Amino acid sequence: MQITALSGGVGGARFVRGLVQALAASPGASRGDGEPTQLTVVGNTGDDITLFGLRVCPDLDSVLYTLGGGVDEDQGWGRAGDTHALLAELAKLGVGPEWFGLGDRDLATHVARSLWLGQGLSLSQVTERLARRWGLPELGVRLLPVTDTPIETHVVVPDEEGGERAIHFQEWWVRHGARLPASAFTVAGLAQATPAPGVLEAIRSADLVVLPPSNPVVSIGIILGVPGVRDALRGTRAPVVGVSPLIGGRPVRGHADACLAPLGVEVSAAGVAGLYADFLDGWLVDHADAGAPYPSRLPVQATDLLMRDVPGATRLAGELLDLAGGLSPGRGRRAVDAGPAAP
Amino acid sequence: MQITALSGGVGGARFVRGLVQALAASPGASRGDGEPTQLTVVGNTGDDITLFGLRVCPDLDSVLYTLGGGVDEDQGWGRAGDTHALLAELAKLGVGPEWFGLGDRDLATHVARSLWLGQGLSLSQVTERLARRWGLPELGVRLLPVTDTPIETHVVVPDEEGGERAIHFQEWWVRHGARLPASAFTVAGLAQATPAPGVLEAIRSADLVVLPPSNPVVSIGIILGVPGVRDALRGTRAPVVGVSPLIGGRPVRGHADACLAPLGVEVSAAGVAGLYADFLDGWLVDHADAGAPYPSRLPVQATDLLMRDVPGATRLAGELLDLAGGLSPGRGRRAVDAGPAAP
Repeated sequence: MQITALSGGVGGARFVRGLVQALAASPGASRGDGEPTQLTVVGNTGDDITLFGLRVCPDLDSVLYTLGGGVDEDQGWGRAGDTHALLAELAKLGVGPEWFGLGDRDLATHVARSLWLGQGLSLSQVTERLARRWGLPELGVRLLPVTDTPIETHVVVPDEEGGERAIHFQEWWVRHGARLPASAFTVAGLAQATPAPGVLEAIRSADLVVLPPSNPVVSIGIILGVPGVRDALRGTRAPVVGVSPLIGGRPVRGHADACLAPLGVEVSAAGVAGLYADFLDGWLVDHADAGAPYPSRLPVQATDLLMRDVPGATRLAGELLDLAGGLSPGRGRRAVDAGPAAP
Repeated sequence: MQITALSGGVGGARFVRGLVQALAASPGASRGDGEPTQLTVVGNTGDDITLFGLRVCPDLDSVLYTLGGGVDEDQGWGRAGDTHALLAELAKLGVGPEWFGLGDRDLATHVARSLWLGQGLSLSQVTERLARRWGLPELGVRLLPVTDTPIETHVVVPDEEGGERAIHFQEWWVRHGARLPASAFTVAGLAQATPAPGVLEAIRSADLVVLPPSNPVVSIGIILGVPGVRDALRGTRAPVVGVSPLIGGRPVRGHADACLAPLGVEVSAAGVAGLYADFLDGWLVDHADAGAPYPSRLPVQATDLLMRDVPGATRLAGELLDLAGGLSPGRGRRAVDAGPAAP
């Protein structure tokens, strides 16, 4: 069985870890062909940033560290038990920013990545090397950046003279805590970006495509914006099943609300489902959102969406697998798309 | 008063620190014009190396850290109390070499330097920024790399098939402890190198030029090899006074013996003086070497050369200043050069 997940950072990484556990507890036989399940994670690269001359890929690293057992569990990003000697010294040299807390162990990832990129390796190749360090192949997991083309999400915010300016996504998200009102998100390089090797194939040939509870605008939305990805989702024969990143109209963590508002999208599980309407086949929401009006043909399952710990994420992933397994052939979006032509 | 010192790494940095202390204890008035003494240190860059994509300048950093109070006193290089989290992580990623022990605090210097070089600053400009961090201007010290042109010393050693191969100086020095027999030293980029801004002027306009007890081949020798530097030393009106790096035919630290042998130069204080014969005006040697045959017109002073601690280095620097102050006008090399033409 082949599963492909489109993932952002913390929420995506935690859900994927639960998915790996759920699959291990309930091996391939019960899901289909008896072969071990192969999981491909397509990671967002829109929030990548170059700091101190080093290339940092926060979402890819959160997946690597979380799956590899090296993540700082409290933060959901960075390395457990990390120190910050290098960053403190850089501050003494007047080299910032100081608001992006890179630890010494974490920095090794960025030094190696920058070294390898400088040697001519693609981000995919670099990510494969990092994934070996973190044991992802042994977990049956392959991590692909959505694109090897450098892209960067910028956020349009008010400037001090009543106009507007664009700042890097990380400055908006980390430094300002997404409190500056955003009027738009732009992604430098996106129109010219091409999907990384294997990305479209992983969506097209999957038996199941999963959308973890990642930010629908600046994580999943960026992945969908890479030319070809959305078409692959519309065209794949696999069911596409997602988990709402919102509970009762509020993000579980992060700032999805501040990202949805500028798009004029309702800050709700139903609003997010609407963003995926052209390819979504099943939608897992919280009990709090069970009563909302969803697209009429969309199978919606209500559960407890909160991933309090690894067992909680494993339970949630298991429920997503159950929802996917219970979809009748021909249900959902493709039933609409492929239905008889109107008379 | 203007003093210019040509310095390598540990020995040079420690002597220069002693010189700063000696000058502070015996201010300008006693040395000449009453103005505070300005000390320019011209640093060797031949042992610079790019590791993990980061530019490392070991000799410049030893001067910075030693003068700035941040050096690991036991090693003579690197930062006091440094940790090694980043390097350990790089090793887990298969990124070496592991034999060059860069600490997390030390690495901040290399990250900042690489960032600034990448932004288009010259090594001189980068070094000036680093010198401000370490308070060198407040000490009346200016640190100049001998050249902004990237140069790298390579060592020709036997290969496993009876032939020869060239390895980076640091691999020979640090990894192999200079135990591989060297047949030659070559310096990539040296012929095309130009002295960094201020270097020649600092030698020409100095009131005194000092050669600390640095390696005569791979430290001072590299500085002398940058086109124009040796001519400036020959031409300066300042006395050039040096400290032998050898005591009783053995280096105090480092591997000057392994560096002199391939040149066919006697491993002795007199042998090293011979390398500087065309510009040397005074030579400070150890009591153990007092009886050796030195060039007949070279003023030689014997003392205890061992710098056991900062007071010891200060004492030695004071003795060098005394030797320089006691040189009669017209003594030494220039007496020979400028003497009456032979009949």
